[in-house]
Amino acid sequence: MKNLLDHMEDVLLMGPGPSCVHEAVYKAMATRSIGHMDFYFIEIMDEIKALLMKTLNTQNRLTVPVSGTGSAGMETCFVNLIEPGDRVLVLINGVFGKRMEDVAGRLGAQVETLEFEWGTPVIPDKVAEKLKGERFKIVSVVHAETSTGVESPVEEIGKIVTQHGALYLVDTVTSLGGIPVEADRWGVDALYSGSQKCLSCPPGIAPVTFSDRAVEAIGARKSKVPNWYLDMNMVIQYWDGANRVYHHTAPINMLYAFYQSLLLIHEEGLMSIFNRHRNAHDRLVAGLEKMGLQMLVAPEYRLPMLNAVKVPGDIDEAAVRVALRKTHKIEIGAGLGPLAGKIWRIGVMGHTARVENVDRLLSALKTELGG
Amino acid sequence: MKNLLDHMEDVLLMGPGPSCVHEAVYKAMATRSIGHMDFYFIEIMDEIKALLMKTLNTQNRLTVPVSGTGSAGMETCFVNLIEPGDRVLVLINGVFGKRMEDVAGRLGAQVETLEFEWGTPVIPDKVAEKLKGERFKIVSVVHAETSTGVESPVEEIGKIVTQHGALYLVDTVTSLGGIPVEADRWGVDALYSGSQKCLSCPPGIAPVTFSDRAVEAIGARKSKVPNWYLDMNMVIQYWDGANRVYHHTAPINMLYAFYQSLLLIHEEGLMSIFNRHRNAHDRLVAGLEKMGLQMLVAPEYRLPMLNAVKVPGDIDEAAVRVALRKTHKIEIGAGLGPLAGKIWRIGVMGHTARVENVDRLLSALKTELGG
Repeated sequence: MKNLLDHMEDVLLMGPGPSCVHEAVYKAMATRSIGHMDFYFIEIMDEIKALLMKTLNTQNRLTVPVSGTGSAGMETCFVNLIEPGDRVLVLINGVFGKRMEDVAGRLGAQVETLEFEWGTPVIPDKVAEKLKGERFKIVSVVHAETSTGVESPVEEIGKIVTQHGALYLVDTVTSLGGIPVEADRWGVDALYSGSQKCLSCPPGIAPVTFSDRAVEAIGARKSKVPNWYLDMNMVIQYWDGANRVYHHTAPINMLYAFYQSLLLIHEEGLMSIFNRHRNAHDRLVAGLEKMGLQMLVAPEYRLPMLNAVKVPGDIDEAAVRVALRKTHKIEIGAGLGPLAGKIWRIGVMGHTARVENVDRLLSALKTELGG
Repeated sequence: MKNLLDHMEDVLLMGPGPSCVHEAVYKAMATRSIGHMDFYFIEIMDEIKALLMKTLNTQNRLTVPVSGTGSAGMETCFVNLIEPGDRVLVLINGVFGKRMEDVAGRLGAQVETLEFEWGTPVIPDKVAEKLKGERFKIVSVVHAETSTGVESPVEEIGKIVTQHGALYLVDTVTSLGGIPVEADRWGVDALYSGSQKCLSCPPGIAPVTFSDRAVEAIGARKSKVPNWYLDMNMVIQYWDGANRVYHHTAPINMLYAFYQSLLLIHEEGLMSIFNRHRNAHDRLVAGLEKMGLQMLVAPEYRLPMLNAVKVPGDIDEAAVRVALRKTHKIEIGAGLGPLAGKIWRIGVMGHTARVENVDRLLSALKTELGG
């Protein structure tokens, strides 16, 4: 039978994720499987948990990698905390804020939203104003909007939400491993991320963490979590404590890969990695501007790892992406929602975030744009 | 930093899953990642879908691998079909039937159960009796109970459920790839499985299929599916049609592995694989009985791939499992629920199902039992 894997090309992944994967992570993923209740696997789980806590800057006992992709992490945070009728405020400035609104609404929450222009950040003063005299159970925000390349001031927003008394739910899918994430210091109560962005592991794992306050809220539910697979009351019994209780079969080899990704991150050091992202970003922006291209986002709000570039009016944006992929073996991303056709999204995430990769893309883009 | 993966042992996996993985599948999993919207990845998705339909003996358009482990498959089938107040009948003869009851109840279904002794199959006549004069939206059953090693007559039950008019939901986690599964001929409306049993791929993928009738039922819902991540209305737009719509980032490398597993299965041929399972099972049972051990399940209901063996009264069952794992590098499984401490569960699943593996286990077990 034909096997498409025999003809896989080596593509430089500079889209919105997945990012390039280190050889050591591929090797880790191909390590022989063992049982999900095996004593040696449980040792690996403990190491993953410790490395993840360090990456998130948290002491939360409930810090685990969920067996699914980033959106399963979003689902996990909301489904464990929401009971029907709960009031949830979702701060929206892109696709992933909109997704939060949809996820929370499906779970029976009374969802209100505060929307900000796409390509700009959430404004803390507007959040404070909205919360005045109100009572929300959860306030949620996206740290790094993958659809626009904007960073929102989650630390500042966290202070307002904490004062209000709501649970603070933060999406760090694109930020984690590329810019600082300080779950405890920022007063975060529930946080999720994904393995395939700046952590540079293939997609399939969604790290989550819940504060003690969030764990209390889960424990105080009147109804069971309406999602058996993602019920943290049960998942934690497999990930913590002396007697590990079987819940579902963990994705063994994905967790090997995730473990190796975290090891690589802490061998290199978070600060050094953040600098690598910043340098790659600076090189990219300088190169793009030199070619006459414009960034969507104002400099002070730009994420280093996700760069939204305005497509010049006379250019067929899809044709350029196809040429980059087919001729130059480089992937970049398209715009989403209202930005479809208007921007390219260029990722310098994790292992990809190196000036030599940026230079290769700039040179290819120059060829395609006839510059 | 220490890396636990550097000291991974080569364990013969003869528990209730995960099973041993073919070298080609490890190699596939370590193939370079590409984007989840890449044209070449979409070609691989189409191949996976076709191979999966062949494996399940179905023409269902909605046949996809869910981005999670087997229990996510269970969650997917129930959450897409159930609306609050729907009447669901769950047929129970082990842990995974109990799990169905829990999953369906959390989703607001009015769940009724029909229970059968653990270690025995579901009895079709009792099901017919229970359904008489009643009206259920869904009837669900486990084909191969992983907790006991019993096969239930899903074809016969299917005729009764079809006549009743309910949607027929079947768990084939442990059966698929080891014994025949004929989704269309049996009148199955929703079915899930897992990658890590007889399909011999590492855990992390849950194949599901929905009949046209089930798709209509999903389309006729009054409320949105209360689980964004597993909403088949959206997932199918990524897996089918001319314009693939991004939903969540697919687990790229896990899908490479799953694709390779399915290729291996159809290269060998399902009939030949079923025979291999049967031969390994026969060899195992003969060897165990020669040692004076007894099987839990009567011969006519025994699954070939999951063998429940009674622990002799004077034996410390956990000590034997630990010795097998530590001294002989073989994993076998413990009993679950009311069978904990009373049985061992020996898997001969997928790539593991070979007489040489059975002989190695029998020899090790003989040593440990002092036979």
